[in-house]
Amino acid sequence: MLLAMGDDQELGRITLAQVAQKAGVSISTVSKVLNGRQDVSPPTRIKVERLLEAHAYRRTTRSGREAPLIEIVFHELESVWAMELIRGVENLAKAHQASVVLTESGTRHSPSPEWIEGVLQRRPIGVVLVFSALPDGVKQRLRARSIPFVIIDPAGDPDPDVPSVGSANWNGGVAATRHLVELGHRRIGIITGPEDMLCSLARLDGYRSAMSMAGLGADPALVRFGDFHVDGGFEQAMELLRLPERPTAIFAGSDLQALGVLEAARVCGLRVPHDLSVVGYDDVMVARWSSPALTTVHQPLRQMAEEAVQLLFRLRAGESTATRMELATSLVVRKSTAPPPADGGAAAPRDLAEPPPAG
Amino acid sequence: MLLAMGDDQELGRITLAQVAQKAGVSISTVSKVLNGRQDVSPPTRIKVERLLEAHAYRRTTRSGREAPLIEIVFHELESVWAMELIRGVENLAKAHQASVVLTESGTRHSPSPEWIEGVLQRRPIGVVLVFSALPDGVKQRLRARSIPFVIIDPAGDPDPDVPSVGSANWNGGVAATRHLVELGHRRIGIITGPEDMLCSLARLDGYRSAMSMAGLGADPALVRFGDFHVDGGFEQAMELLRLPERPTAIFAGSDLQALGVLEAARVCGLRVPHDLSVVGYDDVMVARWSSPALTTVHQPLRQMAEEAVQLLFRLRAGESTATRMELATSLVVRKSTAPPPADGGAAAPRDLAEPPPAG
Repeated sequence: MLLAMGDDQELGRITLAQVAQKAGVSISTVSKVLNGRQDVSPPTRIKVERLLEAHAYRRTTRSGREAPLIEIVFHELESVWAMELIRGVENLAKAHQASVVLTESGTRHSPSPEWIEGVLQRRPIGVVLVFSALPDGVKQRLRARSIPFVIIDPAGDPDPDVPSVGSANWNGGVAATRHLVELGHRRIGIITGPEDMLCSLARLDGYRSAMSMAGLGADPALVRFGDFHVDGGFEQAMELLRLPERPTAIFAGSDLQALGVLEAARVCGLRVPHDLSVVGYDDVMVARWSSPALTTVHQPLRQMAEEAVQLLFRLRAGESTATRMELATSLVVRKSTAPPPADGGAAAPRDLAEPPPAG
Repeated sequence: MLLAMGDDQELGRITLAQVAQKAGVSISTVSKVLNGRQDVSPPTRIKVERLLEAHAYRRTTRSGREAPLIEIVFHELESVWAMELIRGVENLAKAHQASVVLTESGTRHSPSPEWIEGVLQRRPIGVVLVFSALPDGVKQRLRARSIPFVIIDPAGDPDPDVPSVGSANWNGGVAATRHLVELGHRRIGIITGPEDMLCSLARLDGYRSAMSMAGLGADPALVRFGDFHVDGGFEQAMELLRLPERPTAIFAGSDLQALGVLEAARVCGLRVPHDLSVVGYDDVMVARWSSPALTTVHQPLRQMAEEAVQLLFRLRAGESTATRMELATSLVVRKSTAPPPADGGAAAPRDLAEPPPAG
């Protein structure tokens, strides 16, 4: 039983016992409703909620004891995704008169134990976790506290028993590659993400299927695994551009890797898109700001965050047991792609010396 | 008098009255200490705090009623500063076992009225505002609720009666310009920010002083005002690069404007830094990721946020009445600057046709 200490005193105009009596349910049931638990039938919940509303219980609670909070937890705020996701959560929270608590905690697989303790103190409406997986212990502790949670996972593959919002990685890989094929490219390289991340493999499989659909074989020398960061994109692109028969286009797997490809092209004296076409993935702000602006696969990060918060409210209301929700990706054509050069891209990079060191 | 309703019931092992009696002060004074008010003498505050601590009042409060929160409020989460500032606040909050509440609200000059109401409900330890100014009404409402606040202002000029953390804009302008002068540049353009922002003027004055110290006049044709965004940088740079005698270097006033300058150089067929040197300002992540990586003026955003939170805790403890704190800026030399081209930069841009449109 989860009857919060002090609930009776804080009711102000009405006690839990009085609400329970009017609703014809136990005090424990009223408490469950208050705590957002899902093991109350919808009709009972609605009856109790209406009584609480009618007696202004909610307002007393909000102003006196707890303000409505939605938590978003990252394992890595550095991520270029972070700001887009924060904005999505913030938008929806505002619409529900809730505030956003932001935490950076733990590893890619779990928030830290201190965070879990903090959640108990803060009693949020719900939690949005930007993690690839959650250990059973964390899930159980959140469930025991009746705190609904949703994983946003632009990169991984959450457990099926955890509500989650992702996007269509395979389709994104197909769209990026098909765009390059349609421009006339035949030697198309790919730098996907780390080999142990499912989204990397899905994007790579999309590339392979698109190549195959176009009747093009995928040369293994043109398939590379990066780290989803600028440096990995740069290093892999340098290797691709030094091949005897270099690709005329590179699908870079992420926008940050695409920035690394642009730098590799610059160092090799190749102009983008004249000599080399580049496609990113994610469509984060840097894609628009790069020179040239990146053609990329749009991952609807803000919308994913908004869907996650919507799902929290549905879970809290006992309405939904949705598992994995996957939003569509789409290609955004900007300035980093063009038809291949007339010589088919077989030309070696121009000889362009690095500038003398500054200073 | 600010005696919070229900404080007596929530004390658990000890009442406010008992604490007041033991400390030899009024209940109102104990309440003031609880609410973080500054009008209690340090010895009294310490005595009361120690009694509360000894009787575990703080723990009861935290776990039962309110978890410690620090708020950070932006008027524009899109800003490239936002993530760095959030990280700084998050770091320090974690060190104090507090959580971060993030809000986007209002205009550059004030958070919205709804936000103020929310703060009352949430009762945070303190508020960090990323705004240029606060109307008196907002200041008074925060003060009346004993909620300490600090403005972080990388761009503007806060009122002297508001504790604030900024950085040394004039010095940054001098450092950027001096670096270009030392590389041998003589025709140095500047694109500073909007004309109505003090930081724009400070950076411009720094440029003028550095030019003057080097015995160089500032050609009015080389001085431009942008909007601190990529587009403004692009447009102003296009005009500068089309001058009969174009600059060999541009101090871009912000990293985003510098990205616009890079794009203008690309469109004009100028290589950076071979044909044109570019210096940014801010040193946000995109400066490291751009191609070439930007030489820029480092604004210590994360440290500014950390200092702001430290200041909140000092204000809360009645220790500080600091007004404006200004942190040092420093030049970071990367790959976008080099000595001017041998012909002194008088050469017209190379004729480089735009690529055929993609698709």
